[in-house]
Amino acid sequence: MGTTDRTVAEDLDRADPLASFRDRFLTSEPGLVYLDGNSLGRLPATTAQRLTEAVTEEWGRGLIRSWAQWIELSQAIGDEIAAGVLEADPGEVVVSDSTTVNLYKLAVAALDARPGRHVLLTDDDNFPTDSYVFQGLAAARGLELRLITTDLDEGLTLSAVREALDDDVALASFSHVAYRSGAIADLTGITAATHEAGALALWDLSHSAGSVPVPLRSSGADLAVGCTYKYLCGGPGAPAFLYVRSDLQDELRQPIWGWFGQRDQFDMAGQYDAAPGLTRFLVGTPPVLSMIGVREGVRVVAEAGIDALRAKGQALTSYLIELADQWLTPLGFRLASPRDAARRGSHVTLHHPDAWRICRALIEKYDVVPDFRTPDRLRLGPAPLTTSYADVWEGLDRLRRLVESGAHQGYPTQRARVT
Amino acid sequence: MGTTDRTVAEDLDRADPLASFRDRFLTSEPGLVYLDGNSLGRLPATTAQRLTEAVTEEWGRGLIRSWAQWIELSQAIGDEIAAGVLEADPGEVVVSDSTTVNLYKLAVAALDARPGRHVLLTDDDNFPTDSYVFQGLAAARGLELRLITTDLDEGLTLSAVREALDDDVALASFSHVAYRSGAIADLTGITAATHEAGALALWDLSHSAGSVPVPLRSSGADLAVGCTYKYLCGGPGAPAFLYVRSDLQDELRQPIWGWFGQRDQFDMAGQYDAAPGLTRFLVGTPPVLSMIGVREGVRVVAEAGIDALRAKGQALTSYLIELADQWLTPLGFRLASPRDAARRGSHVTLHHPDAWRICRALIEKYDVVPDFRTPDRLRLGPAPLTTSYADVWEGLDRLRRLVESGAHQGYPTQRARVT
Repeated sequence: MGTTDRTVAEDLDRADPLASFRDRFLTSEPGLVYLDGNSLGRLPATTAQRLTEAVTEEWGRGLIRSWAQWIELSQAIGDEIAAGVLEADPGEVVVSDSTTVNLYKLAVAALDARPGRHVLLTDDDNFPTDSYVFQGLAAARGLELRLITTDLDEGLTLSAVREALDDDVALASFSHVAYRSGAIADLTGITAATHEAGALALWDLSHSAGSVPVPLRSSGADLAVGCTYKYLCGGPGAPAFLYVRSDLQDELRQPIWGWFGQRDQFDMAGQYDAAPGLTRFLVGTPPVLSMIGVREGVRVVAEAGIDALRAKGQALTSYLIELADQWLTPLGFRLASPRDAARRGSHVTLHHPDAWRICRALIEKYDVVPDFRTPDRLRLGPAPLTTSYADVWEGLDRLRRLVESGAHQGYPTQRARVT
Repeated sequence: MGTTDRTVAEDLDRADPLASFRDRFLTSEPGLVYLDGNSLGRLPATTAQRLTEAVTEEWGRGLIRSWAQWIELSQAIGDEIAAGVLEADPGEVVVSDSTTVNLYKLAVAALDARPGRHVLLTDDDNFPTDSYVFQGLAAARGLELRLITTDLDEGLTLSAVREALDDDVALASFSHVAYRSGAIADLTGITAATHEAGALALWDLSHSAGSVPVPLRSSGADLAVGCTYKYLCGGPGAPAFLYVRSDLQDELRQPIWGWFGQRDQFDMAGQYDAAPGLTRFLVGTPPVLSMIGVREGVRVVAEAGIDALRAKGQALTSYLIELADQWLTPLGFRLASPRDAARRGSHVTLHHPDAWRICRALIEKYDVVPDFRTPDRLRLGPAPLTTSYADVWEGLDRLRRLVESGAHQGYPTQRARVT
């Protein structure tokens, strides 16, 4: 029996300790192979029920009185993320705003804490919204935005960061897992190097939270933000989280002063007085319904456990790469993610000159949902909580059959504009 | 028959052209009198159904593919608000972030557009989160925050604004309807005076959108933000809206550069290139489930029509004041809102030294939900879409009976801390 035989996948599924978690999510139509759980996580079965309850009972009947339950949702869900998803302490994580707004708040706080330093350091393959935030800040504050050139397949290296750091760097900010390749950055080493240079380290955990361990406590990382709608299954556009190491919280001041960051908010005092701790990093009223989705998603992830998710994520992506080596390399694909499982998050990217057309054809004709990444990459995200080995086998088999048939060549080469 | 007879309310309800709209909302428990629709609007009956559908079908089954439907929700709902709630044109309103974050974005854009001017003008009774945003900006940018002293009952006057304006003012920002007293500011006159001084005008419409006409087009107002969870019934903490007059959109630049504000977002270009029009004022991924709540709320408000809502709002609050004059003034209450209906939004505030205890007792013992405002005010918000004249009669009657009985004196005088 060859490694490409479907029975291998079936055996792996039978041995999968997380297999039962698949039943905790809504099943979409039979036949669909969903390999984009790292863009939008699936719907936990409890979420629809909990949302109906929150809408009808809490909002509909409880009305304004339900704020007694909602007022500390940001902190309460943050604590669940700290304990169950990140390696962080209670009071070090809150849920609020979008990842981008949180990144802005923390970057400004960090830059303000390092006056006299003129460099914001990141890399040239960071997620676009991160780059845009930093470009805006560099322009507004007259800073140098220093870009480390990274290998698009292999990701950022500690040595490249070391070379780029000097005593003019105020803030160094990178993605823990690269959105394109899935390469894991050395969070611990880079944080230490950043601290040696006297700078603060701000991590984007969007592609790692819920799929790989995030050693915030042991690394002494200063600041982090992350997304809840990918591996955390919080729902489309669900509010993001932010982390500030506890000893930094009272020292830092974020720029958007709002009533949810005010000490004794409902005293409605005229003068802003930043709340103690992480509450000062909150701004306006949080979107409660979307927050409730975050809580449900975080709970099922925490129950599965990050170590189990990490083990399955490595096994799933290794299996995917094995199939790709045998089936897809002969068809013109090239692995565009680290081959070493220890250096790879839970998604795998394949390079192919026709990636855009292949992506469209897979979705429209083969009922496989991958993701396209510019300029010529197919990104496959088999989220460990909700993807079976059989899904991976099926997805790769259909991909192989599509490209063998040449059917993708009937699709337009130009990316259609969404807007 | 005296004006305080319950049959007067019943007659008014029979003649109310908006009466049938009450059936379009979830009814909470019988007996509850909800007079806080200006803090959290009621649940439209369609919202629970639409949310279940969005969760199960769009997220659960459609997964990432549903972004085709979601990607322009901010703009689409914005257009519905422009057409049905505000007097604004298509492309002048988007839904995004919180009111506070939107206020920050627009205030920075305005200040950047008036370099060399050093004053941010507001009034000393603006909503706290507005004041906090401006304090933060004044501190960060070394600006003078100039505060107009306002009468807490009667609100801001045009003459006071005129006096405070000079050629050093970059931005003048006020609430259209005051959160405490409900006084309506002269949006048209103040905007014109602000323009004469060469400054930009930024309006907070949180307490006017959905209850009084907002003459953005005819006044030439530059910028506005507003809340969707009050009169627009979008749900707890639902995302806010922002307005930028069309000819200003390409000239202004907001400070939080994010991927939802990027031209051709999914090209994932490395360099930020602000999208044309209002899209550049967007930042990160919007919380889709909460956005869908906004759309349902806006639709029912737009269907009722602002003119009808305004007429009923004036009639309801005038009726409330009539009852208060007869029943409550002898018990130590004093009207703390404009007596002239033309100068008053859809809520009425009453001053009483024991307001806090009265508020607690009303909620806990009399099943009436008003709101307390510091330091000694009871705020009654009979949202015109969902409140009957009989509700007003019933609420005021219970309030009268409570204070006559003295039962509120058994409640603690100190406001309990929420946190």
